[in-house]
Amino acid sequence: MLTDAVREWRDALGEDSVICDRTQIERAQTATFQTQQTIPIILRPASRDQVSEIMRVANRHKVPVYPVSSGRNWGYGSRVPVVSGCALVDLGKLREIVDFSEALGFVTVQPGVTQRDLQHFLTGRKSKLWMDATGSSPDCSLIGNAMERGFGHTPYGDHFAQVCALEVVLANGETIRTGFAGLPAARAGQVYRWGAGPSLEGLFSQSNFGIVTEMTIWLMPAPEYFQAFFFQCDREDGLAAIIDALRPLRMDGTLRSAVHIANDYKVLAGIQQFPAGETVPLRPARMRELRRQLKFTKWSGSGALYGTRGQVAEARRLLRKALRGVASKLQFLDDRVLKLAARFTGVYRLATGLDLRKTLELVKPVYGLLQGVPTRQPLGSAYWRKSMPVPPDPDPDRDGCGLIWTAPVAPMEGSHAERLAGIVERNLLAHDFEPMISITLLTERSIACVVSITYDREKSGEDEKAMDCYLALQAELAREGYYSYRLATPALPAPSSDSAYTELLRSIRAALDPNDVLAPGRYVPRV
Amino acid sequence: MLTDAVREWRDALGEDSVICDRTQIERAQTATFQTQQTIPIILRPASRDQVSEIMRVANRHKVPVYPVSSGRNWGYGSRVPVVSGCALVDLGKLREIVDFSEALGFVTVQPGVTQRDLQHFLTGRKSKLWMDATGSSPDCSLIGNAMERGFGHTPYGDHFAQVCALEVVLANGETIRTGFAGLPAARAGQVYRWGAGPSLEGLFSQSNFGIVTEMTIWLMPAPEYFQAFFFQCDREDGLAAIIDALRPLRMDGTLRSAVHIANDYKVLAGIQQFPAGETVPLRPARMRELRRQLKFTKWSGSGALYGTRGQVAEARRLLRKALRGVASKLQFLDDRVLKLAARFTGVYRLATGLDLRKTLELVKPVYGLLQGVPTRQPLGSAYWRKSMPVPPDPDPDRDGCGLIWTAPVAPMEGSHAERLAGIVERNLLAHDFEPMISITLLTERSIACVVSITYDREKSGEDEKAMDCYLALQAELAREGYYSYRLATPALPAPSSDSAYTELLRSIRAALDPNDVLAPGRYVPRV
Repeated sequence: MLTDAVREWRDALGEDSVICDRTQIERAQTATFQTQQTIPIILRPASRDQVSEIMRVANRHKVPVYPVSSGRNWGYGSRVPVVSGCALVDLGKLREIVDFSEALGFVTVQPGVTQRDLQHFLTGRKSKLWMDATGSSPDCSLIGNAMERGFGHTPYGDHFAQVCALEVVLANGETIRTGFAGLPAARAGQVYRWGAGPSLEGLFSQSNFGIVTEMTIWLMPAPEYFQAFFFQCDREDGLAAIIDALRPLRMDGTLRSAVHIANDYKVLAGIQQFPAGETVPLRPARMRELRRQLKFTKWSGSGALYGTRGQVAEARRLLRKALRGVASKLQFLDDRVLKLAARFTGVYRLATGLDLRKTLELVKPVYGLLQGVPTRQPLGSAYWRKSMPVPPDPDPDRDGCGLIWTAPVAPMEGSHAERLAGIVERNLLAHDFEPMISITLLTERSIACVVSITYDREKSGEDEKAMDCYLALQAELAREGYYSYRLATPALPAPSSDSAYTELLRSIRAALDPNDVLAPGRYVPRV
Repeated sequence: MLTDAVREWRDALGEDSVICDRTQIERAQTATFQTQQTIPIILRPASRDQVSEIMRVANRHKVPVYPVSSGRNWGYGSRVPVVSGCALVDLGKLREIVDFSEALGFVTVQPGVTQRDLQHFLTGRKSKLWMDATGSSPDCSLIGNAMERGFGHTPYGDHFAQVCALEVVLANGETIRTGFAGLPAARAGQVYRWGAGPSLEGLFSQSNFGIVTEMTIWLMPAPEYFQAFFFQCDREDGLAAIIDALRPLRMDGTLRSAVHIANDYKVLAGIQQFPAGETVPLRPARMRELRRQLKFTKWSGSGALYGTRGQVAEARRLLRKALRGVASKLQFLDDRVLKLAARFTGVYRLATGLDLRKTLELVKPVYGLLQGVPTRQPLGSAYWRKSMPVPPDPDPDRDGCGLIWTAPVAPMEGSHAERLAGIVERNLLAHDFEPMISITLLTERSIACVVSITYDREKSGEDEKAMDCYLALQAELAREGYYSYRLATPALPAPSSDSAYTELLRSIRAALDPNDVLAPGRYVPRV
């Protein structure tokens, strides 16, 4: 059966686009945590029609396929399918920027278009629009991230909320477009999401109901003025008060973007790799000493203000007022200060106590992300426990970085943030991992606690230990009602005790993919 | 078959909740335009379990049902099902406010909860939260409007974008909850929309895939300061420049809510009924004279600014700058001015030239809507062509008001606004109707042109003429690529030439409702 499918795929795509090279396949089978699933073959379609043809062949021969955009779903399963035997469909060749409007602020892209591609495109046109970037890698696919409902740092940070006009190849090989974009000569397809009739975008995010081959994503107008802010808090129990202080500003729109609050472990992993000579795991008591030594605090927050100078000044006033007494060292940074600081690196140290050059190196990528400029810098922390230094072209899959991400969501209330952080710290330390977390003020009313279990896959036994930790953590979080906004492959499908809901998903699945050939098991429970 | 179903419905709901009274049925069969569909019976379930039971009986006996929340879908078909023979399921008894959070700004409601109910609830609690209201009637259902993707006037005006945690009774009688709300002990169900796995909210809006029996809707924190604004423009061709001037402010978040720009016909219909002695239709040349006489302009805009005093002051400055030269008489109104004006009604006239008391009467409902306070005032314009005066309890269905609404969507560009307005004015005048329109800056990038075809159903021939007009207008709009965000029953299902899309909807439909018993034909084409 597979051999028949492969023959037909070769006919449809050409020899070069059907890859059975062992090295490439083994790489594709490698995630940042242990997986057993095998991939028989890799397909690299070069057009939407070829994607359709792949699905027709898959149905004819009942061979499952697993599509990836850039395949950089690090920490959540990379390119590895949920079940063995899926042909990997790598959409990287579909790399066209199909449409763009400077006036209306949108761009229409194919799955191979990366954050870097879009950034270059905008810079090349001297566009006054900003993209939003996720802090993972410049080489991440925009479609891949939006369909996984990833998030970034600007007011357009909730990626899935900012997209429309999906072009989708269904499991049967047919193509549809969502919203008005599917109607003849439609004018508003790229500017209005819902269309008329049922709205289907959600159906194609975190699912296996179709392959998104085109998507429109909205871009924000560059503000007249931009100012990043940073704050600190050295009280171990200071998190709750910060969340409660910021909630009104996030809810009323004074803070238009996610604010990220990292704990000490997360900050340390951003500065350096695991400190030589220390015992694993770094205990909180030892962290306290390191904090004093390296001059950072238990909690470090970052965010930004966007608008006219007047709007930013007013937001700054409100932020100062809100954080008074709950955070310390609230500092603001804009282009002018950044340039000035760069000139005087040799002369003075910033309040952190780190030398200025180093601080600037650390701050610049965050400063950029807050303006939607993609960076590979945060990816360095995936090498935290590795003995090799962070290479110039980090690739956690290739380098045996152990990384499992999870991001439970909670109401934006201090008590929840504190409880979440507590559960995570306890579980990770119990399994000998440093609990690196950041609390993100994700939407106006919700926070996500982004957790990374970071280890060295080349150390024997660590893969198992990390998976044990992940599953134990997920179990406790589920008991407490905190569910992750996104799931790592081993935890798929989505947890649910509600059989009617599961049945609903299954019946949609059966209607759309009766042969169960499109990414079987992905988010939707199999029959 | 129907008789068997009715017997079982009586058993399940009780005698009193199964209504076959001719008067009530005839009323339910009456919309604001001509319909032929008949309703055999009305069911009034009092609980979600009864709704489930209704669906089980419907399936057993293959009798279709048509659910309505408050049934005030005026201008779009009221309570009238798409096809004849549907038992009308009136959800008005499900009227509980199930949950509420002042801190997180949400409320969870059943389908019978009206705008008025929520307004009373918030006032009663002295809540610092604002709801958003659609300008139709205080007695409209929140769920009904949100699921039809209606819109209002505050920053939370795109209703469907502000809801989550839908509880849905499926066609088979099973109940599901969307997003995290369906998971055991979930904390974030009411604050985070997407959940994990495919996101299904969109599936249940403008569709016949389920009956929404509960919904969480987000509420905005009352701003420290609120200021409404009004502007005018007397250039016939002034619309395009206004749209282009406002777009940057809407896109960058300075204008956080929809701005509405009404044409002269719309304003006149808001002030009074069809002027005695005039010929039908009022021609543009005559309107120019009336405008001069009554001292209003071709275009009248309204909107509001929300925030701290500082934020509003800055927005005001930017708005002034943007409208300079493209609009005239930009005026701002806040509580203080309103109170002051009320005290001096006898003393002076506002710039409009109308006497102040009258102006205040007209302004107050709009001023309220901009703060989310529901009003029945705009409904008065449905009586435009009636010889009876607007009654204190307007009910267009009951009073034979002819009303067909449509609202084509376009990119927020002046050229589109102008073309849209032109198409609408030409078509309505050609069919002898006054073209009342308002252009709404609906989202950051899109406008909707809200059109009402308003007539007197009691005048013979008018029903047919209005439907001809509606269909001719829809046809031209479709040719030009302008599709309505919402459809009137006669135009259902959604227009589409894309057979794959239609097939997709049909296959979901077949999977969820194999007996075709839930609102057959509603938005989803029948097989």
